[in-house]
Amino acid sequence: MIKIALDAMGGDRAPRAIIEGAARATREYKCHIVLVGKERHINKFLKRNDYVKDRISVKDASEIIKMDDPAAVSVRRKKDSSISVGIELLKDKKVDAFISAGNTGAVVCAAALKLRTLPGIERPGIGVVLPSLNKPCMIIDVGANIDAKPAHLLHYGIMGAAYFKYILGAYNPSVGLLNIGQEESKGTELIKEARVLLEKSKLNFVGNVEARDVYKGKVNVVVCEGFVGNILIKVTESFAEASSELLKREITKRLLPKIGAILSLPAYRAIKRKTDYTEYGGAPLLGVDGRVLISHGSSNAKTIKNAVRVTIEYVKHKLNKHILEGLEDLNG
Amino acid sequence: MIKIALDAMGGDRAPRAIIEGAARATREYKCHIVLVGKERHINKFLKRNDYVKDRISVKDASEIIKMDDPAAVSVRRKKDSSISVGIELLKDKKVDAFISAGNTGAVVCAAALKLRTLPGIERPGIGVVLPSLNKPCMIIDVGANIDAKPAHLLHYGIMGAAYFKYILGAYNPSVGLLNIGQEESKGTELIKEARVLLEKSKLNFVGNVEARDVYKGKVNVVVCEGFVGNILIKVTESFAEASSELLKREITKRLLPKIGAILSLPAYRAIKRKTDYTEYGGAPLLGVDGRVLISHGSSNAKTIKNAVRVTIEYVKHKLNKHILEGLEDLNG
Repeated sequence: MIKIALDAMGGDRAPRAIIEGAARATREYKCHIVLVGKERHINKFLKRNDYVKDRISVKDASEIIKMDDPAAVSVRRKKDSSISVGIELLKDKKVDAFISAGNTGAVVCAAALKLRTLPGIERPGIGVVLPSLNKPCMIIDVGANIDAKPAHLLHYGIMGAAYFKYILGAYNPSVGLLNIGQEESKGTELIKEARVLLEKSKLNFVGNVEARDVYKGKVNVVVCEGFVGNILIKVTESFAEASSELLKREITKRLLPKIGAILSLPAYRAIKRKTDYTEYGGAPLLGVDGRVLISHGSSNAKTIKNAVRVTIEYVKHKLNKHILEGLEDLNG
Repeated sequence: MIKIALDAMGGDRAPRAIIEGAARATREYKCHIVLVGKERHINKFLKRNDYVKDRISVKDASEIIKMDDPAAVSVRRKKDSSISVGIELLKDKKVDAFISAGNTGAVVCAAALKLRTLPGIERPGIGVVLPSLNKPCMIIDVGANIDAKPAHLLHYGIMGAAYFKYILGAYNPSVGLLNIGQEESKGTELIKEARVLLEKSKLNFVGNVEARDVYKGKVNVVVCEGFVGNILIKVTESFAEASSELLKREITKRLLPKIGAILSLPAYRAIKRKTDYTEYGGAPLLGVDGRVLISHGSSNAKTIKNAVRVTIEYVKHKLNKHILEGLEDLNG
């Protein structure tokens, strides 16, 4: 059975939501979950949930890296944190994957330090799959590395394309480079140099894409450096929240719109499902030698349950083998 | 009467939408508009519109800088373009302001070249005012300069705060620095150095803000470098379009939601007004010695009419004097 280590202490709603999500996952999916964190806490919350007994175990970790702790320092100092212990389980091949909704920087740092990056990859990247009008679109990197070099962006393209091809089943996935215009002359030096590398590669590279192309689903994979990618996904989230809040305020002002809103509810729910990050579960940290999934800091039980589902799919495929093939193609 | 030069040839729907917008503006606001561009074309479209005769004149310009022309090269080569001629009118004080929905890079370049930046300002910045849950929020820069230094970000803070204080009437406007986390330890070297400069200034600087704070209206002014700012506003736009398209698809699938949607229409319209860039008209190019407003490339007549309204407000205030005071405060 697939074995997944889950950071029980990571995320704004941990450990309660994480453990509830794990319990729900054991009822829906065939997998074994190792909850990593303070054993006493975990057992307390576990008791309140209905789960499949032989599909959950607990691995004690006495320390917690908080959401706003400095990443590198915490990983070095808190050797018995749930993040470090979870990554160690993965390194020792006691589990097939590790999921955390905790401090992203710390997860990236622990993974790069303990698992190491794949040969040829200098920096890992986080790839988030977003919904769009046509097909889903992966943005890579959304914040693993905010000091990207042109070669890192090329590697993101290779990793994202491999993920789309082998896990999401896209034929010859298209790759675009996020820029502020489509013309070759536009963009920073980083972008211009990365464009040359991507053009020379064997990827199905379509050139520059703009932010508006993301939600139009123009390409499968959008490559960008981590700072910009992080802002991109956070803006989307906050804008979605703000506009539904504004809509609610307007609707409750008058009676007819209120009735209208009630009648429209099924449509709202359908769109919410399509744009809701809790449906998407987790984002793979690509480029490290092991399967690490990063969930949203504000993950609820449903997010975690879905992260387990995504992770099971991820474990079934030998993605890293294909990423290495993609790197070999560069030199071939 | 306030005199405004308007680039009749700039924008995806030029000249038709621009001229229609100008005509509408003359019926609503007390100002004189100089339409800059190919005289014959302008007169042809002008005839089809209802406008106040003595409030519109035409200034011929024989060339057009296209939306995707390389900025610097075009400004140098096309000396008689509508953008260059419009900026010249402003430089020669024949008008009080210039509005263009054309090639943004070319407008920035022509303005910096012909009008020059204010003493002490190295690079101009475009400030866009976005709606939020509480108060509007200005993002500066959204793409005038994609090679920002820490001092440029400091200057954006000073210029944005001056705009908020003197034009939007905010008391002691708050300024935040866009980052991927609130902690001091986060961000690129550019961000860390800019943070030190902003902290030392006399601005009401609240530290790092995240993308999610933009729509929560946490601060009045969000400072960022142009590449990131450009992605931020374009993502918002495209996400808003994509989600309303998705909602439409869901709603038309079934009858009850359809009736519901019709009843909710007034609420939709209210939210659309609040998030629609056509309502906001134009974004000031701050830091140059003259008043330049940049409108969205896909501006329609309403956007242009609103840009004229925003420009009239802008002309009424001596913003550049206040920006210079803000710069003096740095050394005082």
